[in-house]
Amino acid sequence: MIFGKAPNPNPLALGLSLALASTSVAAQEQQSVEERLAALEEKLAEVEPRAAGDEGFSFNTYARSGLLLNGDLQSAPGGPYLTPAGSVGGAVGRLGNEPDTYLEAILNYKQVAENGTKSHYRLMIADSTTSSNDWTAGDGALNVRQAYVEFSDIASFTGIFRDASIWAGKRFDRDNFDIHWLDSDFIFLAGLGGGIYDVKFTDSVTSNFSLYGRSFLDFPSDPQLADETSSTDNLILTANNYFGNVQWMLNAMKAQDNDQRVVGGVQEAAETGVHTMLAYHGDSFFGLSEGNFKLAVMHGQGLGAEAKSIGADGDLHEDAVSTRLGVYGTTYLSESWRFAPAILAETSEDRYIKGDEYQWLTFNARLAQEFTQNFEMQYEASWQTMDITPLDYAGRNAVDGDYSRFTVAPTFKPQVGDFWNRPEIRVFASYSTWDDELEGYAGGDALGADSDFESGQWTFGTQMEIWF
Amino acid sequence: MIFGKAPNPNPLALGLSLALASTSVAAQEQQSVEERLAALEEKLAEVEPRAAGDEGFSFNTYARSGLLLNGDLQSAPGGPYLTPAGSVGGAVGRLGNEPDTYLEAILNYKQVAENGTKSHYRLMIADSTTSSNDWTAGDGALNVRQAYVEFSDIASFTGIFRDASIWAGKRFDRDNFDIHWLDSDFIFLAGLGGGIYDVKFTDSVTSNFSLYGRSFLDFPSDPQLADETSSTDNLILTANNYFGNVQWMLNAMKAQDNDQRVVGGVQEAAETGVHTMLAYHGDSFFGLSEGNFKLAVMHGQGLGAEAKSIGADGDLHEDAVSTRLGVYGTTYLSESWRFAPAILAETSEDRYIKGDEYQWLTFNARLAQEFTQNFEMQYEASWQTMDITPLDYAGRNAVDGDYSRFTVAPTFKPQVGDFWNRPEIRVFASYSTWDDELEGYAGGDALGADSDFESGQWTFGTQMEIWF
Amino acid sequence: MIFGKAPNPNPLALGLSLALASTSVAAQEQQSVEERLAALEEKLAEVEPRAAGDEGFSFNTYARSGLLLNGDLQSAPGGPYLTPAGSVGGAVGRLGNEPDTYLEAILNYKQVAENGTKSHYRLMIADSTTSSNDWTAGDGALNVRQAYVEFSDIASFTGIFRDASIWAGKRFDRDNFDIHWLDSDFIFLAGLGGGIYDVKFTDSVTSNFSLYGRSFLDFPSDPQLADETSSTDNLILTANNYFGNVQWMLNAMKAQDNDQRVVGGVQEAAETGVHTMLAYHGDSFFGLSEGNFKLAVMHGQGLGAEAKSIGADGDLHEDAVSTRLGVYGTTYLSESWRFAPAILAETSEDRYIKGDEYQWLTFNARLAQEFTQNFEMQYEASWQTMDITPLDYAGRNAVDGDYSRFTVAPTFKPQVGDFWNRPEIRVFASYSTWDDELEGYAGGDALGADSDFESGQWTFGTQMEIWF
Repeated sequence: MIFGKAPNPNPLALGLSLALASTSVAAQEQQSVEERLAALEEKLAEVEPRAAGDEGFSFNTYARSGLLLNGDLQSAPGGPYLTPAGSVGGAVGRLGNEPDTYLEAILNYKQVAENGTKSHYRLMIADSTTSSNDWTAGDGALNVRQAYVEFSDIASFTGIFRDASIWAGKRFDRDNFDIHWLDSDFIFLAGLGGGIYDVKFTDSVTSNFSLYGRSFLDFPSDPQLADETSSTDNLILTANNYFGNVQWMLNAMKAQDNDQRVVGGVQEAAETGVHTMLAYHGDSFFGLSEGNFKLAVMHGQGLGAEAKSIGADGDLHEDAVSTRLGVYGTTYLSESWRFAPAILAETSEDRYIKGDEYQWLTFNARLAQEFTQNFEMQYEASWQTMDITPLDYAGRNAVDGDYSRFTVAPTFKPQVGDFWNRPEIRVFASYSTWDDELEGYAGGDALGADSDFESGQWTFGTQMEIWF
Repeated sequence: MIFGKAPNPNPLALGLSLALASTSVAAQEQQSVEERLAALEEKLAEVEPRAAGDEGFSFNTYARSGLLLNGDLQSAPGGPYLTPAGSVGGAVGRLGNEPDTYLEAILNYKQVAENGTKSHYRLMIADSTTSSNDWTAGDGALNVRQAYVEFSDIASFTGIFRDASIWAGKRFDRDNFDIHWLDSDFIFLAGLGGGIYDVKFTDSVTSNFSLYGRSFLDFPSDPQLADETSSTDNLILTANNYFGNVQWMLNAMKAQDNDQRVVGGVQEAAETGVHTMLAYHGDSFFGLSEGNFKLAVMHGQGLGAEAKSIGADGDLHEDAVSTRLGVYGTTYLSESWRFAPAILAETSEDRYIKGDEYQWLTFNARLAQEFTQNFEMQYEASWQTMDITPLDYAGRNAVDGDYSRFTVAPTFKPQVGDFWNRPEIRVFASYSTWDDELEGYAGGDALGADSDFESGQWTFGTQMEIWF
Repeated sequence: MIFGKAPNPNPLALGLSLALASTSVAAQEQQSVEERLAALEEKLAEVEPRAAGDEGFSFNTYARSGLLLNGDLQSAPGGPYLTPAGSVGGAVGRLGNEPDTYLEAILNYKQVAENGTKSHYRLMIADSTTSSNDWTAGDGALNVRQAYVEFSDIASFTGIFRDASIWAGKRFDRDNFDIHWLDSDFIFLAGLGGGIYDVKFTDSVTSNFSLYGRSFLDFPSDPQLADETSSTDNLILTANNYFGNVQWMLNAMKAQDNDQRVVGGVQEAAETGVHTMLAYHGDSFFGLSEGNFKLAVMHGQGLGAEAKSIGADGDLHEDAVSTRLGVYGTTYLSESWRFAPAILAETSEDRYIKGDEYQWLTFNARLAQEFTQNFEMQYEASWQTMDITPLDYAGRNAVDGDYSRFTVAPTFKPQVGDFWNRPEIRVFASYSTWDDELEGYAGGDALGADSDFESGQWTFGTQMEIWF
């Protein structure tokens, strides 16, 4: 039995409309200029925040959609996570490397109570498909990624809670941040729970505290019977602490009975985990020029050894240890050249099978040359080296080698002039090359030896990208 | 071949924008104060109804999302319909008892024709999942629950139809009403059809008439062959009549060939049904204090023996008879204590199998103590007794016993002060206990004996709930 | 790894709100009437385009939802494509002939850059189901049909590109046009790609150029092994040229390796195709009276032999040839009678199997008699003749015969008075009759002999239809 009823639909809008209706009638009558001005000002003050998206409904989006083709004019495999290292988070550059239509439609509704307390409901519906067809009921993936409520400016909160906001529901954590050019977050914390943001101990010391749950669904739990499965929950307690530009995050997690999970034939999966991140949010380009940079070191153990998607991987071994480094910066090299270099690297061992090893490092740089108000040339180079010994986890073989990729993308945009200006419409050509050995990692993957996609490849296509 | 074309997209918006553009240019020129005021007033009169949601797009929502955990920190089964009686509509209290993310995103578009006739298009997209993950393409359930058009203030309607509105499409009936705390409607009428509301015979006598269709899909129709199935439609004629505070509803339905449905090995399913409800909508707390109450008795036979979800159950026996009673009230006990008691009870026999019996009764009470502008304590107690003899319908066994549940929920909200104020962010702890016998009803259900969920349980968690 | 981040969510709305906030505070202070008027005019100029849908969010829709019943009060099969000719695009009239709920929810977001360049993001979510139930998670088909960005008024474009717009993503082509009453486009071009519209060579000569990709998924590619499948892409280069009222469209397409597709046991499917259309967009009713008309001849070969849905059918034979004619007009016959006749006809051979033949022709006419501001009677007659020799393609048998259909539909609408005014709420009764031979075409189709749906049928029901 699933349903819900709103006994009093949209009382705010109703109230506003009644208020407006009554003043509107009055406005037709004989009135002084002063009265008419005051009435207009009052009405506009009601209408403005709704037009600006500060009250009522507003719409946000991230979307990309493009064709990625090989020399035979057929879809090429792609995506920042197409290399063996990608299977454990080692992204390469995304420019000219995305074969999908992925989009997030975000519907917001904001209210302000009479006492000043604000509430924000956010619903995110997302879809992902690699089909080029306009009817994708069979191969699309429409689903709800976020549905939560957050309160801020809470009238009765005082002291260290004065500026705090609280939330509950399903969400991406507010303070996740990413290396855009690799399509990789430093931290991606998401799930279902509740918490508090911006507990303010001093002017420069604030903290967030949250509980997130995630579902580990239908994992094998009997070494003899392949179709005997269990499910459990991974609960993550997180504290995010800010000291000026420095961020220190702490995560502790527990997934009761996850040690009954069968990975590689044995039951040694982690039941608990810890994870921490130390980050610096720089407001210049490494102190060298105008711009920004972000630098972070993540370290995790057990269930915390998935360094980015916190608590999302239930196959991790009880002895798993990972350390990851991420850094990027953005700056203008001259009036018309923009530059954004990035590094992402990780070392991980005993990750899924006792004794396995994962090491990879990605250099990436996006360069843009601005030509007109609406046109720029974008360039991106990626180099990734990896040395992975998976000990047959998920049927994967050991590989040691390099992957390189270079893309040129003539790009149109409404207003050239910043790293984050979108939308963009681009065409692109990429050349990628890699050591043959990487093709032996996993049969079905993008570099897998049995595909037509071999160690040197030209790909090209067209894509749009937008967010607002 | 599926597609549709709008030859003239959004002419209303276009017209408005042209009108505004022309006056806007004029406004830049030399004008008298009078002219400028008049122009501003005219423009605002165009903009206001759109900002208030009276014309154009508006957004409504019901949503809840929460974690429901047991003492092992794992997801607990839950929901108001978790007991054996729940399988036939016997809900218990929902506070601290909901394991899901359920949401309705309602997109409205309202237009007013030059002749004053109003039209309202409503689209409802809904989702339901118990997964805590942020990507639920595999276990979500996004679907369209409503898509209909309703006309009101119809220019050429006169006499008893002067205030009538007409509709067609897929919808929840406008006049469904519920016991919020049990997540149970008194009546839930929904499906695809058309009808007329508010035919006004006298000032205090009005009627609604509608035809609703529902689909009975892929039911077994051969006692020998389990995979021989048929489909049919259940057509429901409904009349809803109001005499002041009294409501009398009449439903008659027919599902051609549903008597070929195999239930419990025999073909005795109902092909027709009748259903009626007598209700009183009180504008005080049972005449005792300020508040409200609603009281209704529902009775149905054959296909009408599903007392709430009218015409939605095709397994009902041709001799099925059900009688249900629902009542709730809301009031303030003191300045800061709110109180909302409810009763829901049903007796039903020959429901699915000739000779079966279903009897259950739920007492429920929600109590709230308001502390600050943003905080209150909520309490809810439920007691349900049931005596069910299903005669092996759907593999279910006879049970006779009681279920009790008590919840404490510290609750934050933007503005404390009413039964219907939302959103809420709550944490909660519940204790529930039940007779062991109830665990034998059905193997896979929440109380089923083979789960860890045994006859006395603490559960806790966090949840948001919102509607607007 | 799927996610995206908007580093700077909705800066436009933020900017607007800040601008408004600062002027709003000022407005409270002592100001001259002139200053207050100027402030109001400035604010309204910000708010207006958002209320009118010229900037920010706006909502468009096409939707229909209805019950289509036979004399037994059960769902009848239907739809404009229900005849044997319908399987290759031969539509009959849609009035009183649609059994589904089909809807398109279109979410737009428009921005104007400081330099004047406009961008338009469009997301279309669509659903289709024949279930009358209000919960269709199992039988609905929610999916994303469009997600693209289009730029117009591009500041730095000059010369023949001055008025051009460019786009990328997944979309329905902007210049598709249809015969509404048959639910058939003349041309339906859609897929994933990019292009440019409105390259203007002279005042009356303009052209569009686009590249569209479509996915051919999982087709059989081994004559021996039925479950050996391949996938490929069909890439379509399109040029659309306008010379006053005349449109000349050219399409060339290639699907690498589609010649490995097994159709009817052999590998002779087309790998390439060409398609062209010559159309005239008339601004009177064939020069006879006020109204409009459209006339087009389409011709295609190989993969281009699907005359309407360009490049969407991968089963086409390498020698396939099709020629299609479409024409419709609209006019008022008198003050209250509207008339819209249409013809759609096609001849096609070697379509799927060397030697097959498809010939069909549909006459259709919609007539409406306007009675009041809110009510009109609509009538529609269709006659279709077909002669199809499919040579066992898809198990289909040769048929030669006629189908006729007549519908009466009393129709309510907010404002009677045009062919395109919507929404409409209608009830209807249809009589259709056809040659028995048509029932032998394909076992599972609407006219298939084993159903209750035989050669003369009354159907009736109710439906809403809306677009905006």
